[in-house]
Amino acid sequence: MTGHDPLVIAGVELTSRLIMGTGGAPSLLGLEAALLESGTELTTVALRRVQAGGEGSVWELLQRNGIRALPNTAGCFSAAEAVLTAKLGREACETDWVKLEVIADDVTLLPDPVELVSAARQLVDDGFTVLPYTNDDPILSRKLADVGCAAVMPLGAPIGTGLGILNPRNIAAIVADASVPVILDAGIGTASEAAQAMELGCDGVLLATAVTRAADPVRMARAMRLAVEAGRDAALAGRIPRREDALASSPVDGRANLDLAM
Amino acid sequence: MTGHDPLVIAGVELTSRLIMGTGGAPSLLGLEAALLESGTELTTVALRRVQAGGEGSVWELLQRNGIRALPNTAGCFSAAEAVLTAKLGREACETDWVKLEVIADDVTLLPDPVELVSAARQLVDDGFTVLPYTNDDPILSRKLADVGCAAVMPLGAPIGTGLGILNPRNIAAIVADASVPVILDAGIGTASEAAQAMELGCDGVLLATAVTRAADPVRMARAMRLAVEAGRDAALAGRIPRREDALASSPVDGRANLDLAM
Amino acid sequence: MTGHDPLVIAGVELTSRLIMGTGGAPSLLGLEAALLESGTELTTVALRRVQAGGEGSVWELLQRNGIRALPNTAGCFSAAEAVLTAKLGREACETDWVKLEVIADDVTLLPDPVELVSAARQLVDDGFTVLPYTNDDPILSRKLADVGCAAVMPLGAPIGTGLGILNPRNIAAIVADASVPVILDAGIGTASEAAQAMELGCDGVLLATAVTRAADPVRMARAMRLAVEAGRDAALAGRIPRREDALASSPVDGRANLDLAM
Amino acid sequence: MTGHDPLVIAGVELTSRLIMGTGGAPSLLGLEAALLESGTELTTVALRRVQAGGEGSVWELLQRNGIRALPNTAGCFSAAEAVLTAKLGREACETDWVKLEVIADDVTLLPDPVELVSAARQLVDDGFTVLPYTNDDPILSRKLADVGCAAVMPLGAPIGTGLGILNPRNIAAIVADASVPVILDAGIGTASEAAQAMELGCDGVLLATAVTRAADPVRMARAMRLAVEAGRDAALAGRIPRREDALASSPVDGRANLDLAM
Repeated sequence: MTGHDPLVIAGVELTSRLIMGTGGAPSLLGLEAALLESGTELTTVALRRVQAGGEGSVWELLQRNGIRALPNTAGCFSAAEAVLTAKLGREACETDWVKLEVIADDVTLLPDPVELVSAARQLVDDGFTVLPYTNDDPILSRKLADVGCAAVMPLGAPIGTGLGILNPRNIAAIVADASVPVILDAGIGTASEAAQAMELGCDGVLLATAVTRAADPVRMARAMRLAVEAGRDAALAGRIPRREDALASSPVDGRANLDLAM
Repeated sequence: MTGHDPLVIAGVELTSRLIMGTGGAPSLLGLEAALLESGTELTTVALRRVQAGGEGSVWELLQRNGIRALPNTAGCFSAAEAVLTAKLGREACETDWVKLEVIADDVTLLPDPVELVSAARQLVDDGFTVLPYTNDDPILSRKLADVGCAAVMPLGAPIGTGLGILNPRNIAAIVADASVPVILDAGIGTASEAAQAMELGCDGVLLATAVTRAADPVRMARAMRLAVEAGRDAALAGRIPRREDALASSPVDGRANLDLAM
Repeated sequence: MTGHDPLVIAGVELTSRLIMGTGGAPSLLGLEAALLESGTELTTVALRRVQAGGEGSVWELLQRNGIRALPNTAGCFSAAEAVLTAKLGREACETDWVKLEVIADDVTLLPDPVELVSAARQLVDDGFTVLPYTNDDPILSRKLADVGCAAVMPLGAPIGTGLGILNPRNIAAIVADASVPVILDAGIGTASEAAQAMELGCDGVLLATAVTRAADPVRMARAMRLAVEAGRDAALAGRIPRREDALASSPVDGRANLDLAM
Repeated sequence: MTGHDPLVIAGVELTSRLIMGTGGAPSLLGLEAALLESGTELTTVALRRVQAGGEGSVWELLQRNGIRALPNTAGCFSAAEAVLTAKLGREACETDWVKLEVIADDVTLLPDPVELVSAARQLVDDGFTVLPYTNDDPILSRKLADVGCAAVMPLGAPIGTGLGILNPRNIAAIVADASVPVILDAGIGTASEAAQAMELGCDGVLLATAVTRAADPVRMARAMRLAVEAGRDAALAGRIPRREDALASSPVDGRANLDLAM
């Protein structure tokens, strides 16, 4: 019924709109089960200082399962540091895709808007496919798209908080303005919030700890997979308008002989 | 993975936790497709003045598809009227299950708490399996359970508004207090809200116009089915705690040779 | 400017729209200073088992300061108990005003809707001026007004939680429907919430612990007095509409020589 | 009681914590009455292209009433344009204070974060006392303080929307991080929201259309003055904690002879 509805980033088609992170997983075995249950086809890996992973690494896990790896620049505090990290990652992982993170400090973990734009510009110019993690400012997202990013990935709430989407209007404004896919990244704590992100018009959802640190990561991975699908369907199904006043689902009068007909 | 997890009401097992209503459907054909896509096993039908439905009726549609019918007392404004309607429905539909609605007026469509408890008591005494539509007051839900109702069905928002769950704390309080299944009934407008109801601990969700009046009812039916499953999984998976402060998903320091190992 | 705008309950004019409670005050001296700073002219006192207060009692404090006492039936769990307590209070306090509380249990402290209506009816019939503490159900408020209560006092949130107004739509619906004054009672934690209650159309606010248990009760009493006045003024001043899109406060173009003219 | 509690910006003491704008006022006469009722001591005036105002100008109105004028750079879309406008304003108004606005476009009216920091740096270097209008990103506010701004002025919601404070956590985070005064600027629609801004820890509130476009601007000006005072008092009074569970304001048992003593 829902037909072919892939998420397309930089020309690459992904059937699943759920992008996973790997941080917070207590074991590789548990991580693998959760990733498989999530149905994800794209998963981020930290690459601040790169080294090819051997047997038993996340790298090897992703390759074995045919999941595309998305190196990130987690832990970088400046454009220069992020650009260098991205280049090392490209060499090690043999992909020019990068999740660009340039955070302002290690307490808030919030993006540095000025350094972020600078790094994005440099990486795009250097041929990278750049997916930047950004705050929920519509103007910053626009700047990132304008310098050539392949998607924008605004936060719902600060990393690891599980607070959901603190400012849905900003996310909707980013979507309305966007010329590239919008991926909700950070803040998701539970399934309904992933569905909400999709209903706001996001093209995908990226999350990690909500699954990896849940009591039952595999079950939560399943919940997230279903929620992203549910939210996508709801976004496309044309929801009923919100009304201030009640509306009977069936007429209250004159139903004498018709009740069982409807 | 998720195993056998049925919704049990009055000893009857339902695999689907999504209960549907039929109001608002523009055509029988469209209604049938949406009901089938939703996966529901229990569907309400209005029965204010009862008459067995012939070919081409909702009644016949439900029987043909093996969906259990739940007659309701929509449009009743007093305990006496609701009790009479329920009895006529029992005869016509050959079921002692009834969705009990006693509304205060036809503008707000809100339940009348005093008449509702009175009607519930009478119907329970008369052998009915009573599923009352109620406001979100935890005390009223407790009274309804105390008089022997088989479930309680609090509203998220007034009927037909699509405003979602206006007071999640009340729903959580009803769940915490409940000795019978709790079904969120009324107010749901989109999939994330159905998931949220389940995450709050509800045992099921009842909705009608969110599906029947959506632009694409079948797609929205699918969204709701997935969302209820997602919310149930999320509720059982043990979500991460909400945190005021950010938390890195991976350590920020000392990751020199370990990034690809996690 | 704002002229004569009293709160009128049962024909009695009150200049202040802030009704205070006395519970939670650590000392009589501190309570007196807070009550005076609040500007209240009506204050509730618990009267489950009545006995006239001597020197150094709250009773004497209120009389000395010309503050009208409003005996309440706190701690009553049934209509019969509340009616008896109210009668004892009337005798002891020589007033037929009563704040009617009938709670369902001592954990939630939520009103029992069925017992509350029953007690209200009996007390009105017996000549009392009844101000019932109720949940935020618009139908219950209507029933209380219909049996002759002089005001209705819905909760914003459960007693002592300081969670503010959990369901503003219900409060607005109660106001829209009400034939008697609406006093927001319970749940207020801080000044902005008292202002919000007034903006929703409430005629007054009743609070206790938000002041008596604040670190600086006198300063919080002042905050509440100002907030109730601010909210009342805002409600009457005709606020700007909420808009989805930004709107420049001055035209963006063609202002060459006009900027300092506006 | 509350003593001397001025707002101090760049060494200048202001008794009122309400900063007004003038945009949207239908007449000078009405504007003057509202400004006086608001008690403001600092008021912004648009200065994109500057020219000293003669008799009957806003400029003259402010001078006559002893209200300090705060020229702004409304309508500037780049750092260069804003810096030039600020310099013209300094000459015309004989003040080195400037409300710095660098917006990204004339639809969203949202600040351009990159241009804003650049303009702020240049103006601080040139000796201006800079009060920048910013989005609610804690990192951008930090950058603005770091380059030497005298205050930061984050938005609650986009200009003119009257939506209040869409992301209170961001405002609280800005306050927690700030080394300079924080003024909530833009988005306020009604009095309770101004009080909330102060309760979140803001040092002041700046608003225009909420007053100038209200049905009764003078009454709304009074509401805002009272609300800002109420919020400031509440912030300093030490509010009660928010509790998930109800808490009786007086003990439920053993109150036989003590009720009137408290």
